[in-house]
Amino acid sequence: MGGSHSKAMLLSATGDILAETDGPCTNHWLVGVDKCIEGIYDMVQKAKISAGLDPDTQIHSLGMSLSGGEQKAAIQKLIDQMSERYPKLSQSYYITTDAIGAMATATDHGGIVVISGTGSNCKLVNPDGTQVGCGGWGHMMGDEGSAFWISHLAVKTVFDAKDNLAKPPHDITYVKKAMDEYFQVSDLMGMLPHLYRNFQKSHFAGFCRKLAEGANAGDALCQYVFIQAGKILAQHIVAVLPKAHQELFSGELGLPILCEGSVWKSWELMKDGFTQVLSQAQAAHSHFQKYSLLTLRHSSALGGAKLGAQNVGANLPVDYSSTANVFFSHSFTKQ
Amino acid sequence: MGGSHSKAMLLSATGDILAETDGPCTNHWLVGVDKCIEGIYDMVQKAKISAGLDPDTQIHSLGMSLSGGEQKAAIQKLIDQMSERYPKLSQSYYITTDAIGAMATATDHGGIVVISGTGSNCKLVNPDGTQVGCGGWGHMMGDEGSAFWISHLAVKTVFDAKDNLAKPPHDITYVKKAMDEYFQVSDLMGMLPHLYRNFQKSHFAGFCRKLAEGANAGDALCQYVFIQAGKILAQHIVAVLPKAHQELFSGELGLPILCEGSVWKSWELMKDGFTQVLSQAQAAHSHFQKYSLLTLRHSSALGGAKLGAQNVGANLPVDYSSTANVFFSHSFTKQ
Repeated sequence: MGGSHSKAMLLSATGDILAETDGPCTNHWLVGVDKCIEGIYDMVQKAKISAGLDPDTQIHSLGMSLSGGEQKAAIQKLIDQMSERYPKLSQSYYITTDAIGAMATATDHGGIVVISGTGSNCKLVNPDGTQVGCGGWGHMMGDEGSAFWISHLAVKTVFDAKDNLAKPPHDITYVKKAMDEYFQVSDLMGMLPHLYRNFQKSHFAGFCRKLAEGANAGDALCQYVFIQAGKILAQHIVAVLPKAHQELFSGELGLPILCEGSVWKSWELMKDGFTQVLSQAQAAHSHFQKYSLLTLRHSSALGGAKLGAQNVGANLPVDYSSTANVFFSHSFTKQ
Repeated sequence: MGGSHSKAMLLSATGDILAETDGPCTNHWLVGVDKCIEGIYDMVQKAKISAGLDPDTQIHSLGMSLSGGEQKAAIQKLIDQMSERYPKLSQSYYITTDAIGAMATATDHGGIVVISGTGSNCKLVNPDGTQVGCGGWGHMMGDEGSAFWISHLAVKTVFDAKDNLAKPPHDITYVKKAMDEYFQVSDLMGMLPHLYRNFQKSHFAGFCRKLAEGANAGDALCQYVFIQAGKILAQHIVAVLPKAHQELFSGELGLPILCEGSVWKSWELMKDGFTQVLSQAQAAHSHFQKYSLLTLRHSSALGGAKLGAQNVGANLPVDYSSTANVFFSHSFTKQ
């Protein structure tokens, strides 16, 4: 469940997918607790109906992997309010972060997950289950490399160029025009409602798609912001690398890096920045000889469901051979 | 009227100050239009009472210099709503920015005004009244060198150091402890409500005072963030310098730079960064041989009142010899 849309999956005790449904943003930091809870409830009800179940059927375990599901006190409050408001929804509730849910969807051996959707986050999960994070603090304190951040970097470059505060790295003409069109403004002033009174993170972040179009069409500034995103996302991996267990480097794939979120669709645009930063980091980590980037074939709701079941002592069987794909591999070893 | 508090001044037609009153933040982007209007109304009513006037007395002109008073459409809406809601408050209404209000308080010959309070802004006013701005876009798109920005830079340095995302320029121990105390948190997670659900810009910016204390007590990271603020505030001046009329450089004071907002109280902490950037810029501007920093002795509400009166064809006499002080002068000319 991410910063712009969410997915629910209903699974049988044997791990069969009975239904999948879509819903709105359920980040409680962004939409508030009430909307978050309602959004989740609606998706689950829709899933039950879609699976041909009575909507009053109580499910066994509701495992949620939420963007913004990090702070323990806030999470407990969410669960308390959910079970109070919808006591018959589920026998048990479990919340983890979107990062951990994604990881549990791909593998139970650990790795690094890097989310770049509306927001961004990076989490190292060691084979023993211990976690080390970097980022995931939201747009006010980071979200580096996310769609929001890429959009913001492009818009800020236009503001600074117009203000003569900083020289843009490339001509701003294309980005300025795309910004005027996307936000329906004619000058910088017009951006203020989009930044304050009517600020919607996911709408602001949506400008990133226009920048990807520009980059693919050859605009240098659009290409630049994606290269910066590739660099800073790789920097998140470098940040947690010293805490990664040796074991994580020694598999066939090298270090497995799970890439989640829509910005990874623009991998080709980020590749040069990303690979450059990891190559520089390799020098300081002799056991870091290879890495592979993976993408999920299933929603990370699957991992959330698995962890939720695990939390009440049930094992939800997942066939890990079919949940993720390798889309890029790089080996530092000389051929 | 700034991002954390406001002032109202009631003047007679001869320019005598009849009353001064204080009020809350009236930045409509931050508090919303309703609170903004109510805050202004309450201050004016208090001023009338304090001046011994009947609170029902209609004033001649209400001239407002508002932080956030830049966007024409939003300003017209504010005026419309104010005159609709309080039709008997004033015969006429006029709104300008805090920067222009401050400038009109100090001089009618023009200069550069640099505001650094909760937010920041820079405006060049040429002797012919034409204006060129840099910054003033609020915390989502700048506010560089402001109390918010300084606080954010310090907090972000702690986050990045804890995340191992970036090496801090100096030890974070002092700032981390000050942050925990000021925001009443014990870990980074605890900061999230301060950044999102309960975000209050002026409260976040208030952490800057603690950083000034730390800098004065010798903490290197606290000193660092103020030097950065000095640099970027000077960079705002450099941004508008190419548009400054020759005349502005030729007075006795050299280029007059009006410094408004509470961050300037920490001038000594910013001085090295500030003077360094202006010295570098001097090389490219041969007529830029001297500058003087001025501070207002009166609230910029005075300038707002003067401009408001001017807008309805009245001249409110202001004795400019007593409205501002020079607190720093620098001459590039070799002695």
